[in-house]
Amino acid sequence: MIVGGGFGGLTAARALRSAPVDVTLVDRRNHYLFQPLLYQVATGVLSPADIAMPLRVLLRAQRNATVLLGDVAAIDLHSRVVSADAGRLRLPFDYLIVATGSRHSYFNHPEWESIAPGLKTLDDAREIRRRFLLALEQAERSTDPAERDALLTFVIVGGGPTGVELAGVLPTLARRGFRRDFRRLDLNRVRVLLVEGGPRLLAAFPDALSIRALRDLQDLGVECRTGAIVTQVTADAVHIGEERIATRTVLWAAGNTASPLVRVMGVATDRAGRALVLPDLSIPDHPHVFVVGDAAAVPDVPGLAAAANQMGEHAARMIVHALSGESRESFRYRDKGSMAVIGRGRAVADFGRVQFTGAFAFLTWLFVHLLYLAGFRNRLAVMLEWGYSYFTYGPSARLITEEDAKDPR
Amino acid sequence: MIVGGGFGGLTAARALRSAPVDVTLVDRRNHYLFQPLLYQVATGVLSPADIAMPLRVLLRAQRNATVLLGDVAAIDLHSRVVSADAGRLRLPFDYLIVATGSRHSYFNHPEWESIAPGLKTLDDAREIRRRFLLALEQAERSTDPAERDALLTFVIVGGGPTGVELAGVLPTLARRGFRRDFRRLDLNRVRVLLVEGGPRLLAAFPDALSIRALRDLQDLGVECRTGAIVTQVTADAVHIGEERIATRTVLWAAGNTASPLVRVMGVATDRAGRALVLPDLSIPDHPHVFVVGDAAAVPDVPGLAAAANQMGEHAARMIVHALSGESRESFRYRDKGSMAVIGRGRAVADFGRVQFTGAFAFLTWLFVHLLYLAGFRNRLAVMLEWGYSYFTYGPSARLITEEDAKDPR
Repeated sequence: MIVGGGFGGLTAARALRSAPVDVTLVDRRNHYLFQPLLYQVATGVLSPADIAMPLRVLLRAQRNATVLLGDVAAIDLHSRVVSADAGRLRLPFDYLIVATGSRHSYFNHPEWESIAPGLKTLDDAREIRRRFLLALEQAERSTDPAERDALLTFVIVGGGPTGVELAGVLPTLARRGFRRDFRRLDLNRVRVLLVEGGPRLLAAFPDALSIRALRDLQDLGVECRTGAIVTQVTADAVHIGEERIATRTVLWAAGNTASPLVRVMGVATDRAGRALVLPDLSIPDHPHVFVVGDAAAVPDVPGLAAAANQMGEHAARMIVHALSGESRESFRYRDKGSMAVIGRGRAVADFGRVQFTGAFAFLTWLFVHLLYLAGFRNRLAVMLEWGYSYFTYGPSARLITEEDAKDPR
Repeated sequence: MIVGGGFGGLTAARALRSAPVDVTLVDRRNHYLFQPLLYQVATGVLSPADIAMPLRVLLRAQRNATVLLGDVAAIDLHSRVVSADAGRLRLPFDYLIVATGSRHSYFNHPEWESIAPGLKTLDDAREIRRRFLLALEQAERSTDPAERDALLTFVIVGGGPTGVELAGVLPTLARRGFRRDFRRLDLNRVRVLLVEGGPRLLAAFPDALSIRALRDLQDLGVECRTGAIVTQVTADAVHIGEERIATRTVLWAAGNTASPLVRVMGVATDRAGRALVLPDLSIPDHPHVFVVGDAAAVPDVPGLAAAANQMGEHAARMIVHALSGESRESFRYRDKGSMAVIGRGRAVADFGRVQFTGAFAFLTWLFVHLLYLAGFRNRLAVMLEWGYSYFTYGPSARLITEEDAKDPR
């Protein structure tokens, strides 16, 4: 039984392809999502379907795998049963891999969530796209200069890769992509602020790349505030220490907390709610239960797709070992490097000994992301959309539906 | 002032491009929607962004046009003011074109609407896609054969072009496109019923084409019921006369009623809520107010995109005439023909003297629809999606998000 069809869960399912087991993968969504490109759906450059693939299609050819749509509510480790959909679906298991990922953490301010959405799922991305587009529409309608400036101010909280990538897209999109579209707005008044509590952006990257990212963002017109603590988020402002910044759009890319299911299982967790696992990724006293990806607390392993994939593969291998009576092994993370893209045409890339920046890093980023995207159709679609937005500067999925417009918050 | 950015409204705005006027187009959505392909979004073949274009982009180069996002709530014909967004937006006008289209009509059973969604907007299409995909997922999970059969039964009410087009796609999609995706389901048990109250399908087409459409649909495995009156729609069944058909998915393509804004204006309407207009499309006693498209009752003019376009153009010309003191003219509809596509590879086409069916009609349909779709990007995207789904039989935008899955009804 695998709960969660993200990087860790899907990789685990595939790694069990020739094992003498029946694999059931349960997810509350029907698709695998290529999260590294989610910020492009949030800005309307890509369509949701471009970066998502039905789990059924991905596991179609794997005879021993069954996919079920279900919202898992409880996991009983002792009687070995997963319950989904308010108990209507009861799924017994012999081995379990929990790969439920993480959600945003609002640092003990859960009331900020409805004001400042995060970016983990397609629903999140649509919500951010809606708010971004709607703020510009409302600014075009507004006759009050102060309100208009607040509507044109976009604050992104969190200077990790997601925050940096969002911040890098918005200014060019608004000022160049929409340049000829509004009659009353001065799009040069669009302000994008990136607020980071720590001393530098991209804290997981080497110093030199953080500095380069900061400079690249500043070139694009992003106001970067480091060492800046958000003290209050309201419907019309963000407070950074004593300073009040009037804004109607706050996007959250700051903290992570493991999916609540980990707590529901009743296992020991760290402060971020991640399960404390043994070196082989199993849960203490439950050698048949593994936790992988962002839901697991493993020292020195970053919250990256590559890490989740490796953990999923490891857990699958440990199950095969257990079935054949082989001994367990400790998980060892192999660092494949990390990248963050900054606007159109620049990126920073850290591959341990080799680090690079600028256009070459951007092209590497493009290539790697196209390569890892699932499916020929999606690769082609994303390539075309990128080509389109490169030349037009505009996003192609720029939609506000009636539902979207109904509720301005 | 133009209210509504569909076929009629957008054409009117464009027709005023060189007139000595300031055009303001208000819509509660930010996009123009190519409705003839909406059923393909509802079945997941196309993505929403493929058939929609921001109104701002379409009117970008037209200097005298301003686009505003706003939900028009009232129109005061005497003081000549349009109010939108609960009165926050007040827009005075000299001339007004109302092009607000139509919604579904449930024949005095408004309580059926939440059970049986119709197909007019992108939100509608997403809702239908959600129900179609979710029913299959629920059927895969179900262990009760009767429930499973009900989940695999899809009832479409209304045998006009929308109903015929939806009915023609579903069986092949489910049986071929998803063939290898489910482990427990027998997709040959998928039932698609098309229910029409009148004596034949496609009532607006010549007899021979109706017969051909019926035969083509039957070949695809669609159960067509003509002269069949829906007497009851509940959460788990549709009643046709005395017969009860257990189903969890009912799609509504039966009746139309003009947008409620027409009534709000306080003008005389016909039974379908459409404004009774003079031969020049203006409202009696209000020569500066025009109603075009599905919101207008004009004898012998069908509810087609081409008719709405012609009416929009006519209203624009009448405004130019009025400004230059020329006299009004009666609107005259030029029949450009009509088409309905049936599944993959067949269609019926009626161009007055010339009528054709089968593969040639289908190719004509493809060509015409690509031609009229707005924008190079969308044309290319749609062509690629069609190519993809032609070879794979599968829809590419096959997404159920958490929001989607949360509420099964």
